[in-house]
Parts: sequence; structure tokens; C-alpha cells
Amino acid sequence: MQLIHSVAELRARLAQEMSVAFVPTMGNLHEGHIELVRIARQHGSCVVVSIFVNPLQFGPNEDFDKYPRTLEADCAKLQGLADVVFAPMVGEMYPEKQTIFVEPPPIANELCGAFRPGHFLGVATVVLKLFNLVQPQIAIFGKKDYQQLAVIRQMVIQLNLPITIIGAETARAADGLALSSRNQYLSADERTEAAFLSQILRGMGVALKEGETGYAGLEEKAGAALAKRGWQVEYVAVRRQADLGVPEKSERYLVLLAAARLGKTRLIDNIEVGL
Amino acid sequence: MQLIHSVAELRARLAQEMSVAFVPTMGNLHEGHIELVRIARQHGSCVVVSIFVNPLQFGPNEDFDKYPRTLEADCAKLQGLADVVFAPMVGEMYPEKQTIFVEPPPIANELCGAFRPGHFLGVATVVLKLFNLVQPQIAIFGKKDYQQLAVIRQMVIQLNLPITIIGAETARAADGLALSSRNQYLSADERTEAAFLSQILRGMGVALKEGETGYAGLEEKAGAALAKRGWQVEYVAVRRQADLGVPEKSERYLVLLAAARLGKTRLIDNIEVGL
Repeated sequence: MQLIHSVAELRARLAQEMSVAFVPTMGNLHEGHIELVRIARQHGSCVVVSIFVNPLQFGPNEDFDKYPRTLEADCAKLQGLADVVFAPMVGEMYPEKQTIFVEPPPIANELCGAFRPGHFLGVATVVLKLFNLVQPQIAIFGKKDYQQLAVIRQMVIQLNLPITIIGAETARAADGLALSSRNQYLSADERTEAAFLSQILRGMGVALKEGETGYAGLEEKAGAALAKRGWQVEYVAVRRQADLGVPEKSERYLVLLAAARLGKTRLIDNIEVGL
Repeated sequence: MQLIHSVAELRARLAQEMSVAFVPTMGNLHEGHIELVRIARQHGSCVVVSIFVNPLQFGPNEDFDKYPRTLEADCAKLQGLADVVFAPMVGEMYPEKQTIFVEPPPIANELCGAFRPGHFLGVATVVLKLFNLVQPQIAIFGKKDYQQLAVIRQMVIQLNLPITIIGAETARAADGLALSSRNQYLSADERTEAAFLSQILRGMGVALKEGETGYAGLEEKAGAALAKRGWQVEYVAVRRQADLGVPEKSERYLVLLAAARLGKTRLIDNIEVGL
């Protein structure tokens, strides 16, 4: 496994590769990331993992500075799984002030986007830059960041990128909590409570499978249940899988998404429900 | 030479090409375009020319509908010069409503951009799409559209596109008029007068070479001279070559740009001046 920090070295290393599978990450790797890399391994003869905490996708009051950076441990976990780890400094990715951006589709202004203005513009822009650097045939993203995956899929289609996007299932702790680098911000009590986010989504899924079609009512009830237990709820939403639009009652491919804060920690989760 | 209309066929045709030189055009090819293709021929073992009148870069009151479309004649001119002509229908480039755009840099709002809101967003977006379809190593653009070339150059750098951009000199008629598809909108009298646009820029260049540093005064004088002869002037500007910024008096690499209407026809021109 080769650790590369510079764009020039990355380009030189990948110049002759014909089949690259790419996993972009912000590092602090957990089992969820490793599963993405395993999937990449199945699809490419060369597996590239990027580790880059992208300032462009953090708001001014978000956790860019304290976001955990654990490059050495990350590389240890990738040993034997990845061929190349690309871990550039901020100045390598943004040698000049970035003034050209990917303007994401309208869905980027809803759900998480409504609470994190500019977030998906920053995500789409850095992912496009990384795609252009790595030039993979395949890229793997976790469904944990469902809206991000939707934005990337739309970007790939609308910008005619020659890349196949694979969405990988969310890895979870035994109690159902979706794995996330931000889980380590939680206190012990918060960590116990955190599992409730996935539980309430699963509960909504059961109701939908039993024939419930009152989406707004379901959303409200789940939001109230979270709030009662001390969560600050950003949103709970029933959406279409295909484009994250608000579904008709006849829609069969649904996804339930939620974002809420427990203390100072913002958690998101989602589950797909096929009817 | 192969004429291709579909994205799928284009991708299949180019899959095995290792050295592609690309000339994106809106068709209605004149000697200026042909020169771009000749330059491409020197740089790539496979030369791709696209012919696509891109609705995204035309404003609602611009000439998208009447823009000359002359595919058969264009192909005849490219015979023996291009390997692939890619001429998609609008629905092939935009199978769904485009909601993802390349947001161009601030310079895109000045000069032509100030008079054609959204123009460079449309240009940058379609050029990125074409780059992703053709995946060239080299792309050639005319200096005639100097601001477009600057936007594309910045896009390539900031989005890390693995493409070398070549800017080619403007082809001119004997009287100095820059070749342009829009010249054919001119009446006979207008065509005679049209050469004055390049003449006044050359005059400004002479003044600069003689030591003039009052850029604003030069711009005003040239604008007034055009207006007096019946031109509706949009702008006459002295700028830095590097980034089209407003130059200091010490700047040595200048470009003089102008846009003005003669009757209903909008003409642009520019000349580089090295001091």
C-alpha cells in the first residue's frame, strides 16, 4: 500500500491503471468505511482510498477543526486492502482560492441541505475534483449519507462522468446505531440513547409495511418522540428513494431519513423501505 | 471520418483511444475553426470535433433559434482532418432537465458576462460535459472568445481536469475582421464597417506600446469612436491576460477586449498586447 500526499505523485502512480475503484473518505475509518473498501476490492484491480477532511463542505459553525484526524491508524486499517491512500493537505487540493463550484441540484437545499447551507456544493465540488484526479471506473459511497449519494448520482449522470457509483449498506453497531466518526463525540449516556434514532426509523418502516400512508403524521410522531427524549430534531422525512422527492401514497420505494442533535452531536440516519 | 450522434456510440468509439485532441464547436465552421482542428491534428492521434449549439449558453432574447446550423457543409470541411465528428441532438446532451451546473468564477460576471447573464455557466457546464464524454488529453479553443478561454482554463485548473488547454490565434478576414459565424448576419454596409472593431483595438495597442497607461481614457475614447460610427457599445476594456483582472500600470501582458452591436449583430474581438 502506497501513501501519497501530492497530486503529481498520484497522477503518476495511476497513469497506467486501467481499472480503478475509488472510495473517498474523510478518514477516521470505522468498519463502515472498511466495508466500502472491501466492495472496491471486488470491482477494481487498483483500489484508491482518499482521506481528506474537506473544508469546503463544513459551515462556519461546524466541526471542521475538531473533526478527528487519525491518518496513521487509518493507514494501518487499510493495509492489505487498499493499493493507494491519497491523503492531500488542504493546500494541495485548493492551491488557489476555489472560485469554481459544482452547483448541486435543488434536492441539495432540502433535508440536511436546509440545515447545512453550502454543504452539498462543497461535497459535489470536492468529489468532482477527486474524480478528476483519480479517474476511477467505479466509486463507492455509503448509504449512511443517503442525500450525498443521491447528489453524487445525479452529478455523475448530468455531467456525463464515466463512472459507476455503488451505494453500500450502512454498517451498524449491535444496538442499531449507524457507525459514524461523529459517534465518538457522544458521552456514555448519549451513546446509549443514540440507538433510538435507528429504532424510531425502523418503527416507521414497520408502520409503512403495515399499510400506513399518512407520511406527514408519521414524521411528526417520530419527531415528537425524539424531542421528548431530549433530541433536538432537524428533520424526520419520508421520501422517494429515486430522487428524494416527496412521495405519492402509491410509492413503493421509500427511504426514511432523520437528522437530530443529541447534546452537541449531530447524528443522521436513514433506512430504505420497499413495499 | 466518422459522424456520431449518440453518447453511447461516442463512448464505444473512443474507449480504446489513448491520445485524443478535442475541438468543441457550435458548427457553421469557418477557417478559424479549421485552424483549431489542424492544431488538434498535431497533438492527438485521434481528433474529435463536436458540433453542438448549446441552448444552455444562450439567453432568452439571444439567437439560439436562428444560429446557423450547417452540419453537412461542416462535415465536408472536416473530411480528412477530423477522425470523429460528434453532433448530438439537444435531447442527447440533456436527456433530463439539467439541474447541476458549473458555477464559473467571478470573472464570468464581467465583460461579456455582464451582458449575457448565465452565458458562462452554460458554457462551462456544456464544456465539462463534453470533456467527460470525449475524455481528451488536449482541447483547443480559439482566442476569439478570450473570456471563454479564460473561464475554461480556470475550470480545468480548479476542477483538476487532466486536460491541456491550447488557445489558438484568431483567424481574420483580409480587412482584419475576426472570423465569426455571426458575421453572416451583417448587411453589406455593416460588413464593411465591421472591420473597424479590430482597427480600433489595434489603435489602442499602438498607444499602449508607445507608453500610454491611462487605460480608462483609452477605453472611453475607443468606445466614443465606435458609438459615433453607429455601434452600440457594450464594453471596451484593457485587462490582464492572465486572469482578465483590471491591470496595474506596470502590467506587461495586456489584452484589449471589446463587444459592440452593429445593427442587430453582436460582435466581439480582442487583441493581446505584450509590452
